Formats: sequence, C-alpha cells, structure tokens
Amino acid sequence: MDERLWRVDVARREAHRAPVPESWHRLGGRGLIARILLDEVPATCDPLGPHNKLIWAPGLIVGHMVSSCDRISVGAKSPLTGGVKESNAGGTTGLQMVSLGIKALLLEGDLPAEGWSVLIVTRDGLRFESGDDLIGLGAYAAAERLRGRYGDKVALSLIGPAGEMALTAAGILNLDKDRVPSRINARGGMGAVMGVRRLKAIVVDGAGGEKPPLTDAALFKAGQKLYTQEVLAHPQSAIYRDYGTAGLAMMTYGFGALPTRGFSSGNFEGIDRISGEALRDRILARGGEGDTSHACMPGCVIRSSNCFAAVDGKMIVSPLEYETIGLVGSNLGIDDLDEIGRLNWEINDLGLDSIDTGAALGVAAQAGLMAFGDPAGAHALLDEIRRGTPLGRVLGCGAAVTGKVLGIRRVPVVKGQAMPAYDPRAIKGTGVTYATSPQGADHTCGLTIRAKVDHLDPKVQADLSRTAQINMAGYDTLGACIFGGFGFAKAPGAIRDMINGRYGWGVGEDFLQVLGFETLKLEQAFNRAAGFTPSDDRIPEWMTQEPLPPHNSVFDVSEADLDRVAGWS
Amino acid sequence: MDERLWRVDVARREAHRAPVPESWHRLGGRGLIARILLDEVPATCDPLGPHNKLIWAPGLIVGHMVSSCDRISVGAKSPLTGGVKESNAGGTTGLQMVSLGIKALLLEGDLPAEGWSVLIVTRDGLRFESGDDLIGLGAYAAAERLRGRYGDKVALSLIGPAGEMALTAAGILNLDKDRVPSRINARGGMGAVMGVRRLKAIVVDGAGGEKPPLTDAALFKAGQKLYTQEVLAHPQSAIYRDYGTAGLAMMTYGFGALPTRGFSSGNFEGIDRISGEALRDRILARGGEGDTSHACMPGCVIRSSNCFAAVDGKMIVSPLEYETIGLVGSNLGIDDLDEIGRLNWEINDLGLDSIDTGAALGVAAQAGLMAFGDPAGAHALLDEIRRGTPLGRVLGCGAAVTGKVLGIRRVPVVKGQAMPAYDPRAIKGTGVTYATSPQGADHTCGLTIRAKVDHLDPKVQADLSRTAQINMAGYDTLGACIFGGFGFAKAPGAIRDMINGRYGWGVGEDFLQVLGFETLKLEQAFNRAAGFTPSDDRIPEWMTQEPLPPHNSVFDVSEADLDRVAGWS
Repeated sequence: MDERLWRVDVARREAHRAPVPESWHRLGGRGLIARILLDEVPATCDPLGPHNKLIWAPGLIVGHMVSSCDRISVGAKSPLTGGVKESNAGGTTGLQMVSLGIKALLLEGDLPAEGWSVLIVTRDGLRFESGDDLIGLGAYAAAERLRGRYGDKVALSLIGPAGEMALTAAGILNLDKDRVPSRINARGGMGAVMGVRRLKAIVVDGAGGEKPPLTDAALFKAGQKLYTQEVLAHPQSAIYRDYGTAGLAMMTYGFGALPTRGFSSGNFEGIDRISGEALRDRILARGGEGDTSHACMPGCVIRSSNCFAAVDGKMIVSPLEYETIGLVGSNLGIDDLDEIGRLNWEINDLGLDSIDTGAALGVAAQAGLMAFGDPAGAHALLDEIRRGTPLGRVLGCGAAVTGKVLGIRRVPVVKGQAMPAYDPRAIKGTGVTYATSPQGADHTCGLTIRAKVDHLDPKVQADLSRTAQINMAGYDTLGACIFGGFGFAKAPGAIRDMINGRYGWGVGEDFLQVLGFETLKLEQAFNRAAGFTPSDDRIPEWMTQEPLPPHNSVFDVSEADLDRVAGWS
Repeated sequence: MDERLWRVDVARREAHRAPVPESWHRLGGRGLIARILLDEVPATCDPLGPHNKLIWAPGLIVGHMVSSCDRISVGAKSPLTGGVKESNAGGTTGLQMVSLGIKALLLEGDLPAEGWSVLIVTRDGLRFESGDDLIGLGAYAAAERLRGRYGDKVALSLIGPAGEMALTAAGILNLDKDRVPSRINARGGMGAVMGVRRLKAIVVDGAGGEKPPLTDAALFKAGQKLYTQEVLAHPQSAIYRDYGTAGLAMMTYGFGALPTRGFSSGNFEGIDRISGEALRDRILARGGEGDTSHACMPGCVIRSSNCFAAVDGKMIVSPLEYETIGLVGSNLGIDDLDEIGRLNWEINDLGLDSIDTGAALGVAAQAGLMAFGDPAGAHALLDEIRRGTPLGRVLGCGAAVTGKVLGIRRVPVVKGQAMPAYDPRAIKGTGVTYATSPQGADHTCGLTIRAKVDHLDPKVQADLSRTAQINMAGYDTLGACIFGGFGFAKAPGAIRDMINGRYGWGVGEDFLQVLGFETLKLEQAFNRAAGFTPSDDRIPEWMTQEPLPPHNSVFDVSEADLDRVAGWS
C-alpha cells in the first residue's frame, strides 16, 4: 500500500489520508516525529492544548519482522518536559500500521468537550466508535474488552486511567505478540496527550494489509541475514535471553549505581534477591505461566522479555524489566520480586510510566508518605492514583511535580523527567546523556554502561555519550530495539543493505549516524524554539553536591562538556 | 550609623556586618536585590537550595518617614517563577532596618538540618534564639508571641505555616504601624526561601538607632515638602483615602476586566456587593474597630489601607485590598465582603500570597474541588493547606502547580506566578506587563489601567507598559509605594532633591527612570542567565484563544511587541 499520513480530528470525528511531504519521506519513527513537530506544532504551545499533535510513526525498517526492528514510536510536545518527545515500544502496533501503509498517524485539531472515542483503523480507512464504556477500566481489562469486540488479531494502542486523567506520567500501551498490553510508550506523558483528546484506544486492524514493498528483495534479505547472524552470535544476546534486562541489576550494583532508597546509595543490601539471576531462578522453579525468555515482537530472536509467574504458576506480570526493578524495587527499598512484580502490574494497569512512578514514590517516601521497604505503602499510593485523589494526581504527574508539591529537593529528574535506574554520579556518561538528551533523562537515548571506561572519571564521558546518543537516535528512527545494536554494531552494512533493499535510496554504511545526527539536530531545534537553554541541560544541583555511596562520587562532568554534547558550543 | 551589609548564616548561627561594595552603593530595594542576585547567586541554582540568598533591602529614600516611602523589599531567586524576585511591603521593617544602618540583610549558607531560629537584630549586632516554640503557629499568633517576648516597639518579618512548609506561594509578613502582621512581601514564594533556612522570624529592634544622615537637610526637606503637597493635592489620593484600593473593583468591572469565576468573565453580577463603595458603607455603618482610612506605614498621608470590622465591631481583617477582593471574591464567585475578609484573614494567618492562593482556589473550583460562590468550600481548602495535606500543599504551591496537578489548562499565570485582578484580555497594557516583567505576572510592576487609551486596542499597549515598568522599577528601588507615584509624577524634582539632599550624588530629574531602567536590565540579565527565553514572556495560550465576556476580547498584543518590551529585540 502506498505510504500515507493518516490525519485524525477526534473532536470532529473526521479523518483522512494525505500524501507524505517530500521532506518527510526519508525519516521514520523518532526522526520523523521531530520533523513533524518542527513543521506543524508551535514549539511554545500548551502540550495539553489543541495545537499539540500526537503522532504514531513506525520506524523505517518496520514491516518485515526483522528481529527487534518493528518498533512503534509515539511522540508529541511533552507535557512532562515541555520539549520534544518520542517514546517507542515493541509489540504489534508498528507492524500492523505499516501493513496498512501508515507512514504516520496524527491526532490533531480541537480538544473534544465530551464523550470518549475509540478509533478503528483498517484497510478501508478510519472510523470512530464510542469509548465511553471503557472509561475507568484499567489497561488490562480495557484491552481484553477491545479484543473481544474487535478480534484477537488487531493491534491496540490504548491508555489506562492515568491517561484518562491526563496525568503527565501516563503512557500508551500496546499489545505484545501474546496480546497482553505490556509494550508501553511509557515516557514523557504521551498518554496524557491522548487523554485530553478523549481517545481511549486506537484499534489497528491490519486484515488485508500487505508487507511494504521491497525495491531489491535480495539485497534486503542479505542485510537481514547478516544482521540476524550477528545478533545471534553476540554473547550479550544470550545473556539477555536468559536473564532479560534484569541481568543489569548486578552490573549497576557492581558499579555502585543501583538507585537505592531515593537515590541515596548505589548499593542495595537486597541485591541478591532482585537480580536477574534471582528472577530467572524463581521463574524456572515455579513453571506455570512463567517464561524466562519471551519475544515482545514477532520475529525477535533475542527475546529479552519474560513472563513472571507466582508460586501458583499464575502470571504476576510480563515483562519485569530492570528499570522497574531499580525504580520500584531498590529505589523503594523493596527486595521481593513478587512484590515488585505486583506493583509493576498495577502501574501498567493504571497506564503509567514505571520509571517516573517509581521515582515519584521514592520522593513520596522521602516525604514520609510511605516507608522505604513497605510494598503495602507503595500499593496504597498507587491506589491514590487510581482513585484520582489530589495526592494520586500529584504522584501521577511524576517525580518532578511530586518533589515540588511535597517540598523535597532530592528529586532525580532532568527536564522534568525521572532518571532510569543508573545513578548518574556513578555512571557519568549516562549522566551526560540524561543531562543533554533533548528527551530528558532517558537511558535509551544513550546508555554508556557497557563502555570500557572508568565510569567515575568525568573527563572521558562527553564523547562517549555523544556517540551513543547519535546511534540511539538512529536506531529509534529505524524502529530498531536498543538490543538490535549488538548486531548492527558488528554489521553496519546490514542497515545500508536493508534500507537500500527496501527503498532504493543508495545510502552508505554511515546511514545510522546520518539519521541519528539529523534527528538530534531536529530535536534540539524544537527544544530551542520551545525555550530550552543550556540551563536545562544539567543534572540536578543536589547530585553535584551529595556524594553517592559507595564511591562517594558526585556528578562532576564539566558544564562545558555538557554544552558541547548538547550542541550549544 | 554607617550602612553595612548584614550577612547571616542560619545553619551555623553566625552573622557579621560587612562593608557595602562600591557598585552597590547607589541602589536600594528592588534594584539592589537584582544587583546582589547577579553578583552572588548562581542563576541556575535550586531556589530552595543552599546557593540561593534571601535578601532584605530597604529602598533608597527609606528612613525619614517621607509619606509612602519606607517600604522594605525582600528578594531572592524565586521558587515560584525560577527567576529574579523582589516583593515589597509597607509596615515598619524598612524604617527600623535603616535606623540600624542596614543597607541589606542577606540569609546565606547551608540549609539547617533541624531546629528553628529567630534572628534578633539590634544596634549591637545580631543574635539567634530558638524559634521552635513558634512552629505551627499562624502568623497572627506568632507575631503576638514575638511582641510579648521582644516588646511592642520592634519590627518583625515572619513566616506562617505555609513558609514553614516551604510552599511556593508563601510570603513574609511585617508589622504595620499598629503592630498587626498585615504588610506582606507576598509574591514569588519568599516565605518558602525563608522556611528552608528554618528561620521563623527576624526581630528588628531599632532601639538606639538613628535616622540616616542627610548631606543637605534643607534640600531633602524641600523635596519632601514638594512631593507631599502634590500627593495631597492629587484627586486620586482622596479616593484612595476614602475607598482604599477596593475602589478599583468598579473600575475594572467597567472595563470588563474583573476576574470572575476562574477568569471566565470580566463582569461579576455581585459587583455592587464587593465594590469600594460597598466596603466603605459597611465599615462606616458598623463602627467599632473598623476604619476606612488607615496608614500602613508611619507618616503616610494617603492612608489607602483600611480596617474591616464585623457587625459586632470586631476586626475581620486589615486591610482588605482590591486584589484580594478580585481573586478571593469575584474570581471565586463570592460576593459577601465579610466572607472575603474572613478568607483573607485565614490566608494571611497561613502566610500566603492572597493573589496566588485565590487563583489556585479558582483553579480548584474549575476542577470541582469547591463550588464557585461557596465560602465554606474555600475555607475547607484553606484548611487543607493548614493541615499540610497533599491537596493543601498543591494549593499552597500556587495556581500554576495546582493547574498542572489537577489537569486544568485554564490557569492565569505568567512564569508560574498568578495574575492579579486585572484580566489581561481587557486591560491589555497590564497584560504586556504580566507577560514581560522579569517578576512574572504582577500589577505592581506596571499597571496601565489609568492610562487614557483604549485598553482593548492591542497596538497601543507596548510603550505604555514599558514606561510603567521602568517607573515602577524605579519606585521599588527608592522604596516608594505605587501611590507615591501620584505625587512624584507631578514633582519629578522631588526625587532629585531628596536623593541629592540625602546622599549628595548630584542626580538629575530623570533619576527615577535611570534607576528603573538599570533595575530592569539587571533583572533581565539574571533571568536570561537562569534560562529564560522569549517563550517565557507570554500570556498563557488559552487567553489568546478564549474570548473574555463582555467584550469577547482575547489577548492579542503581538509577540514582536512583547519581545521589544522584554528587551529581546
């Protein structure tokens, strides 16, 4: 099918398909979102007002079930950061959108005054149905009802109660290959931008759709094969297959960077009970619905995801990822994986970002609203969110607002967005990424933990972060998972071949970097137009002063380095 | 006494007097605060962290009981706006500080970890005593206890429970000439900056102090006389004497700019029950402790303040000002002056800014947390603040945070600070001031309501606001009340003569503008260093779209005009 922009006006319940502007053709995913925001969204607009647009954009390689390469990007001006935002997820939404010829789907126009909608996207076009009966339902129940109504083969993007309430830590959930709404465009409040347009869900019914055409199928397949071989051969892929991202817990602990009790230490005494090894042992011992290795997207050969079941064999949550273990586990002083898993399910069901929510609860614990190490206290706070109480709304707005309201200064955020589970005082290159990424604090924008450097040395971090940020912006534009990088790094020609095989553009081996560089420039331009300055590209003051045990290090990468990485100098 | 800087480290309970740097000599009040912030406070620092400084600075003419000219400025980097902040008040603090030779008093250094202090400032120096017994007391009770302890002649600057909780709409209260803590450095959260240093009060004991020396006493007196004559002769002075600022209610109503039910209309059907005439009639009819004309500072000949008593003759609150009537009255749909007065007393006792608090309650009413027109509902919300509940903390952080948490888009703020009682869609020159003042939305930075222009015409407002902003920055640096301008406008030579008579500087008739221009430049420089851009100098998006009855006007002064006034172009 021809690639089209699908433009949707929820207030008028109108939608149409339009041609793709020339300058948007060679972008997808994160890069395309930045381009659209720059071209169509006033940078200073109210993110929860009518001038913002919420954009779904599959990456450039999406559509052929290349392993780890079918991600869906969702973006808008962020109500959490006030800047450019792209958040990508696995699952089946990207694949089905591409099969219908969707280059990008845009929600735009006035905010509806009343009534909730569901948007159904099919080969024949778009239509609206009422979503009123779904309001108040958690994400899992809403997804189940939507599957009952629209069939088991559709893809879904939906919001939970947090998105309905326009809470700025709300995300958008997509179905994984087993139809669980667990693949989340979690970061930056995209669920709130969907909520103010009173759209509970998009149903993508790819029936009758087609794989996107290949200009040179042989070339594409050759690139795909090379890449897949390298992914499979990479030792790290096996580790992720066995331990999932949870394997990172022991690594960050070793670096003294595991967020513990409100980012007050980099070591947690309960590490052995929350590590990837502990998780794997528990899953294997229990059997039942548990699975140590699970693919979030069809065709993925890494399968870093998992299904975590209780002693009775029933699923607690799928997946349980390292960042959640860090923010909801050690950061809250909780060392029981079952409890962490149950909190994770609850956060997913609310439709929230587990990173910003975990960080917010850590701030609340500092303020005495729950005790560190008390899962019941954490559940009680999540229940406040579900009930939409004032405290619940505060927490659902994320860690930055929670700190402001509760008068807590020790808040781990950049540009209003909470830090993932790598304390920047002990893995300083990732701190540079947190500080300077146009997206706000986000490990997926340039994690440096695997680099062979002294992570405590402030002098060697800037270029490391810069390179990682360019590569990640490239992968996010291609639609590739962060772990696809294990393969692409060994086989840069694979990207060239797949892109040329699909589009015939004649790009070179450096296409990843070309895309990444362009994407970052576009994002920086949007943020500058929105009013960002070098003062926004900083780690919070308290982290430059308060030493982090066990290394007793502070974040001390120079501001000159930060300004250089962020493109100010 | 020689003018000195009094530097105070609360954490170490140390203080000392230091010489005044040469470049600070010719500034006072607001201008001096901007200069000190630029010189000593990192612009990007955490406003509630150790690098911020809280500064008391009397204006340049303070000390001789010139009518309306003994105001005390308090400033810091604002935790509400993130930018430069000066908030001035009447009362006796400025006068007594000057009599002790205080050019400026700075709170600086680390934040104390525990224990509350009272700082006592006398002719002999500074000392600390415990303030622990005062914690949790409302401002009225705390002031009474402090007067009991330190005598009836001292001046006080103190915080209420809101400041103790570091709520960002908290102010600092000073005693008026009748020793009521009703003269408030209200705006921008200065009370929170005092609260994080765990300082409940400053006691200024001017015993043994002296009036500041005059270089040419005859010249000073001549200037003072000329000014006082012009103030007394101005017809507006008589109106303020009789009706207080409440006289403005009918005027803004007439212009269709009276904030009504969450800034949804410029006309309020209850105007006749909340006007200056209604207030005067009620005060006169009741007698008792009521007084239609009251001086907030010794020596004031305008006496625009008032004492508002109930039917039993007992004081409800003193004063009841127009901005409170607008924000807590019509903005909340409340048309009973007694109820407005009782809410005002409560807000004062909490130590909050009545403008930001009234605006926050208006946002809460939009969210359904109280009904418009329900004083009991408003009291219940203020009680939440007193109890420090999560909702109370949200409200006490002001309208901007309240809107963010409650998901309300229609929030009347600029730079995070709430608008006073002049809707910028109907008095657009004041809207230009709100948008472009380095202080955030603040009528005292350049009110244009008395200019003989079409207040709806977007084309004629920029220069009007600019001139008013320069003049007001000058008055705030001299220590003169906004109403002193009635006299100075007719007798610009009076400023020249008083300054030359006091300091011998040989300034010209344009000294007011010289001071104002310099002050604004310093403030703009601080804000730029803090990360402000033209995008911060804007009226909220919704006010550029939602027409305001009865004129159905939107705020439509061009961004080019705003950028010019703000010094960007």
